[in-house]
Amino acid sequence: MTSLSTWRDRFERLRSNKVFETFVIAIIILSALLIGAKTYEETSRFEQALRVFDVGVTIFFLVEILIRMGAEKRLRDFFKKGWNIFDFLIVTASLIPLDDSEMVLLARLLRIFRVLRLVSMIPELRILMVALVKSIPRMGYVALLMFIIFYIYAAIGSFIFASVDEKLWGNISLAMLTLFQVATFESWATAVLYPTMEHYPYAWIYFLTFIFLNAFIFLNMMIGIVLDVMQKESLAIELENGEGEAAELHGLRDDVRDLKAQLSRMEEALNRRGG
Amino acid sequence: MTSLSTWRDRFERLRSNKVFETFVIAIIILSALLIGAKTYEETSRFEQALRVFDVGVTIFFLVEILIRMGAEKRLRDFFKKGWNIFDFLIVTASLIPLDDSEMVLLARLLRIFRVLRLVSMIPELRILMVALVKSIPRMGYVALLMFIIFYIYAAIGSFIFASVDEKLWGNISLAMLTLFQVATFESWATAVLYPTMEHYPYAWIYFLTFIFLNAFIFLNMMIGIVLDVMQKESLAIELENGEGEAAELHGLRDDVRDLKAQLSRMEEALNRRGG
Amino acid sequence: MTSLSTWRDRFERLRSNKVFETFVIAIIILSALLIGAKTYEETSRFEQALRVFDVGVTIFFLVEILIRMGAEKRLRDFFKKGWNIFDFLIVTASLIPLDDSEMVLLARLLRIFRVLRLVSMIPELRILMVALVKSIPRMGYVALLMFIIFYIYAAIGSFIFASVDEKLWGNISLAMLTLFQVATFESWATAVLYPTMEHYPYAWIYFLTFIFLNAFIFLNMMIGIVLDVMQKESLAIELENGEGEAAELHGLRDDVRDLKAQLSRMEEALNRRGG
Amino acid sequence: MTSLSTWRDRFERLRSNKVFETFVIAIIILSALLIGAKTYEETSRFEQALRVFDVGVTIFFLVEILIRMGAEKRLRDFFKKGWNIFDFLIVTASLIPLDDSEMVLLARLLRIFRVLRLVSMIPELRILMVALVKSIPRMGYVALLMFIIFYIYAAIGSFIFASVDEKLWGNISLAMLTLFQVATFESWATAVLYPTMEHYPYAWIYFLTFIFLNAFIFLNMMIGIVLDVMQKESLAIELENGEGEAAELHGLRDDVRDLKAQLSRMEEALNRRGG
Repeated sequence: MTSLSTWRDRFERLRSNKVFETFVIAIIILSALLIGAKTYEETSRFEQALRVFDVGVTIFFLVEILIRMGAEKRLRDFFKKGWNIFDFLIVTASLIPLDDSEMVLLARLLRIFRVLRLVSMIPELRILMVALVKSIPRMGYVALLMFIIFYIYAAIGSFIFASVDEKLWGNISLAMLTLFQVATFESWATAVLYPTMEHYPYAWIYFLTFIFLNAFIFLNMMIGIVLDVMQKESLAIELENGEGEAAELHGLRDDVRDLKAQLSRMEEALNRRGG
Repeated sequence: MTSLSTWRDRFERLRSNKVFETFVIAIIILSALLIGAKTYEETSRFEQALRVFDVGVTIFFLVEILIRMGAEKRLRDFFKKGWNIFDFLIVTASLIPLDDSEMVLLARLLRIFRVLRLVSMIPELRILMVALVKSIPRMGYVALLMFIIFYIYAAIGSFIFASVDEKLWGNISLAMLTLFQVATFESWATAVLYPTMEHYPYAWIYFLTFIFLNAFIFLNMMIGIVLDVMQKESLAIELENGEGEAAELHGLRDDVRDLKAQLSRMEEALNRRGG
Repeated sequence: MTSLSTWRDRFERLRSNKVFETFVIAIIILSALLIGAKTYEETSRFEQALRVFDVGVTIFFLVEILIRMGAEKRLRDFFKKGWNIFDFLIVTASLIPLDDSEMVLLARLLRIFRVLRLVSMIPELRILMVALVKSIPRMGYVALLMFIIFYIYAAIGSFIFASVDEKLWGNISLAMLTLFQVATFESWATAVLYPTMEHYPYAWIYFLTFIFLNAFIFLNMMIGIVLDVMQKESLAIELENGEGEAAELHGLRDDVRDLKAQLSRMEEALNRRGG
Repeated sequence: MTSLSTWRDRFERLRSNKVFETFVIAIIILSALLIGAKTYEETSRFEQALRVFDVGVTIFFLVEILIRMGAEKRLRDFFKKGWNIFDFLIVTASLIPLDDSEMVLLARLLRIFRVLRLVSMIPELRILMVALVKSIPRMGYVALLMFIIFYIYAAIGSFIFASVDEKLWGNISLAMLTLFQVATFESWATAVLYPTMEHYPYAWIYFLTFIFLNAFIFLNMMIGIVLDVMQKESLAIELENGEGEAAELHGLRDDVRDLKAQLSRMEEALNRRGG
């Protein structure tokens, strides 16, 4: 039992060691470079060396996560932190043996996600990620509203323009993709609007209203989000400042009430004596 | 009379039922998918089934809106809410019988707008829509200013460049469309500027001033709107906070005035006795 | 003398008449539509009518500005307001007789600027314009900084890439135009970067640093301007609110000092009597 | 020794002379125009004159920086200011003799950077540059996060799409460049997405998630930076204002405490006499 807790202490010390942390980050970056290197054809002659290195990295990550697990008093504690689960999933995913030639691609893809461990290792990136995740619900409803507009325009577009260009407006999915292209302004006039206007001269109404609606909602959303977050921030600041001042004001009022009580006592004493 | 009010209560209970609400949303989404499905050619063999389903959805929406009407004490109350009118128009529009082959397209288009009922059903989207509508006047004058600039540039463009490319600058409408394309940066240099510069080497002055003016006004508009809304918000917060504090300060001042009055009474009493 | 001042009063009343104002706006819009109509070839058969109408509009504007001049006590007062000079220049410019066939184009262009009178007629647009003009100095130095970056990159580009594509990089002016095209992302990769990379494989460093520098400065500028204006606004609000509160606090402090003086008098009286 | 300090005074006076400053700025602009002029082929016949002028400008800059060095009490003081080092590097770099035909290009490039001296000469641009440099760390981590996303998508892209288009997805570097092109929306649909979808019909998932992720992070970053800077500003304002008010409140409380002490003394006196 003692030997186990000694091991745990050692693991704990190792995990929180700055040098070890930097070493883990270096291995993650090396592993990322390894993945990048594999996309070059010239590396095929170093294939043997790369494979050995790949196995080495995989084992290192496995050992590292086992050390972090061992450093916790109970295994449950390890899985309580979101980032630990994140790391655990990435490491175990790259452990799955995929030797089948078909599966090699999938195995490679799973190894790519190791790069994401950089996010869980660097505190500043972690903060950024948390902020991003927090903003998802705020963005969600705007995305839904935009999707509804895309859907309606895509339905109209595929009903009317399907005969003009089957590839662009053939069905609602293609139409939505075309509208997304229009929303990013990519060749929207030369490749989408002008060919359509040759058959439907008033097609510009469809496209301009769509672009304006999109830009209008997007702009309002951005402004809305900025103001929303800002309002909360400034409210918090006001409250904090205000609380300090309010406390001061309250204290002052209590002082003045004490004065009043004292004066009343004195007045009474005076009156009693005067009576 | 009692039976009528009983029915109204039942309708009222049904309308505010969470399950019923979710069911209505599900039907709206299904109806949207149905519209989308019709854009695929493969669905032509299910045409009969789709038609039956379509009639079913139409009837359902009719019943649902009748129930909501019945739930109100007076029919007038129903039409007092903007969203009810919005729903009513969408539902009645899809009731219009359009059997003419020419009119089938219009009938389909009217059915598409049913998707918009999602907006009136989901409270978060309703809030978003209200915010959007509120920002229209703010945006309106900037849009007018931009239109004036587009109009002037389009007039100049169609006077000077009409001989270069009849399709792009033939008349003021075409020129405005071309300028809109330039404003979205779509092929503005390769397809519009460079061909024009072959005949008018100084055409870049026209395009660059136009782009700068647009970007400049757009930027200022965005900043202006953000600041405008923000100022109102922060004023409201300040006022709210300020009111609390001002009330506190006022109370304090009243307390001090009471003290003064009491002291004056005491001083008088002292002087009277001393005299 | 009296008849003159009577005329002035009449002019004054006419000028500030809402109906007259609306009529002027209507004429401006009509004149704008007239300019637009001239860009359509089909209108050549109405040429006679259009010319008569054009003369009519020109005379109307002349009379209108004379009325506004007559409404002022002294002519100098008329030219003291910026918007009056603005209107005067537009009206006189369209009076210049240009019958020469060469000059017809210029005469038309001068007539286009009449549309700008809408800006001086509608108060909301006037406010917008004033805000725009105010933001010019703030934008100016950022534009200068961007120009320096464009100039340096254009010089480098025309030294290195001139041999690749004479049309894009032939001299520093062409290179700056090409860089502007790159900055708007128009065909920057397919038409500019990739052809260049065939001769200079490291050309992407040049383009990517340019794009990042531009985006970076643009973003910072926008943020800077928002914050700059915001800070001034919130300072003004704080000061206003703060002043109210500060006055209240000062009043309170004076009250308390009065109390102190009164108490001191009473203490002295007590001590005197007690002695 | 005296003569040396006299010279220093003269240099100091010359350096801080407004006319001299304007003259230096004029020379910088002239030198910039000179660089620009060299990119025109027609200037080859003025080559001799341009070369003489170039030598003149180089000597002028050398003299100017020597004067500024001489104006400092100790040479060390000169190198303590960042902008001086900036100027010194630019001037010395253009002094390196590069007569080799190969090196002529490098010599020219080094001369281009003289334009940057405008930034160190104009105070407003200096402020702008300092603000830009300060915002680098804030931007750095977001850039790192974006790089990670680009890297992962590029790895996935080059594994899957390499067979579709070797030029776009051949290796991870090419894939990152292609993704950057997609991120700027340049021909992303017509030249990248649609050709890929012919082989992989679900490729749109890859591109749309990439675009959304990018836009999402970019938007959040911008909002984050605006709020971050704003919060600091408003905190500073609040603190400043708050301190003034807090001091006032503290003073008031001290006054009230004095009142209390005085009253207690009086009450004691009353009681003593009453006893």
